[in-house]
Amino acid sequence: MAETLILHEYAASGNCYKVRLTAALLGLALERRDYDIMAGETRTPDFLANVNANGRIPVLQVGERFIPESNAACFYLADGSPLVPGDRFPRADMLRWMFFEQYNHEPNVATLRFWYGWVGEANLSEAQRAQLPGKRAAGEAALKLMDAHLAASAYFVGDALSLADVALYAYTHVAEAGGFRLSDYPALMAWLGRVAAAPGYVAIDA
Amino acid sequence: MAETLILHEYAASGNCYKVRLTAALLGLALERRDYDIMAGETRTPDFLANVNANGRIPVLQVGERFIPESNAACFYLADGSPLVPGDRFPRADMLRWMFFEQYNHEPNVATLRFWYGWVGEANLSEAQRAQLPGKRAAGEAALKLMDAHLAASAYFVGDALSLADVALYAYTHVAEAGGFRLSDYPALMAWLGRVAAAPGYVAIDA
Repeated sequence: MAETLILHEYAASGNCYKVRLTAALLGLALERRDYDIMAGETRTPDFLANVNANGRIPVLQVGERFIPESNAACFYLADGSPLVPGDRFPRADMLRWMFFEQYNHEPNVATLRFWYGWVGEANLSEAQRAQLPGKRAAGEAALKLMDAHLAASAYFVGDALSLADVALYAYTHVAEAGGFRLSDYPALMAWLGRVAAAPGYVAIDA
Repeated sequence: MAETLILHEYAASGNCYKVRLTAALLGLALERRDYDIMAGETRTPDFLANVNANGRIPVLQVGERFIPESNAACFYLADGSPLVPGDRFPRADMLRWMFFEQYNHEPNVATLRFWYGWVGEANLSEAQRAQLPGKRAAGEAALKLMDAHLAASAYFVGDALSLADVALYAYTHVAEAGGFRLSDYPALMAWLGRVAAAPGYVAIDA
């Protein structure tokens, strides 16, 4: 890739890790710029005006252009590579799992990790506390659906690693920090091992 | 497209409308199969086993294969057409807005429409009621972000209609049913008019 790639990130975020993992699997170099989300560094006027008006990380900078949304940034990096299926149906099926990840998985599995691990249970608002049972049930349902799919398929789309796996791996492999018990999902556990064994794999804390 | 296309849907759902609008803009024929979501018709054992294990519509059926997730179904239909930019950066930028739609827009703008228009305010659970202020604020923030972007750009990705516009149009143009006031967002209002004037456009109740 001709243009410099810069990842604006908070390293412990699974959404940011997705982009690093995609780059590592593809052998692409990324510069990293860290922001302290707990100190509001992604809500400053400068960040909102110049990096992402939505006040969120990750943002992938490509030369002078910016791509917010983790899964879109991964798609930019992997477009045309073996991580994006070349045929029309599996390419859409990959996106199907990536949209599932952002709609059914991340708001539950990732949010509970953040609430328990960063905000702290004692500091949750009333509105957050009211959502705990719903997010627990929805997170369990997402993991169960993944486990059932993986009982019959080595990866999310057919028999090869794709961005669907990268997107779903990021918050699944650290889900126990949100109170989920991964040993309840044996096919999912085996898949986590396959992803971690992929050539080029990097850990979330690398 | 050689294979028969069948949309499993609930017609008033904006997510289902996205798929119909994409097909209409492309001149593709879709068979429609309707399910009464209020009567649980997408949670039956038959639906879960044969259409979508996630118990949700829309699902696009392509011959004997199924694609859940509205934005993935739209991508399948439009892949290779002018609704998906041919260059790498704008293609990822289109997906950026489609992930924004599912993460920041739909759970707020669409959910409030559903809660007020289908569930009924008096029937909301305590947990739902606790989320009303947060969903209102997040929905307003999403509309505001869209309005600011559209003040400088005719469409979400450059100067041509893409799936980003289709995805964001679906629930935005009916947002007033969820208590949002679209006249607060003049650039967004003008964009709604541009989308509705596109050749092939169909209305949500067509």
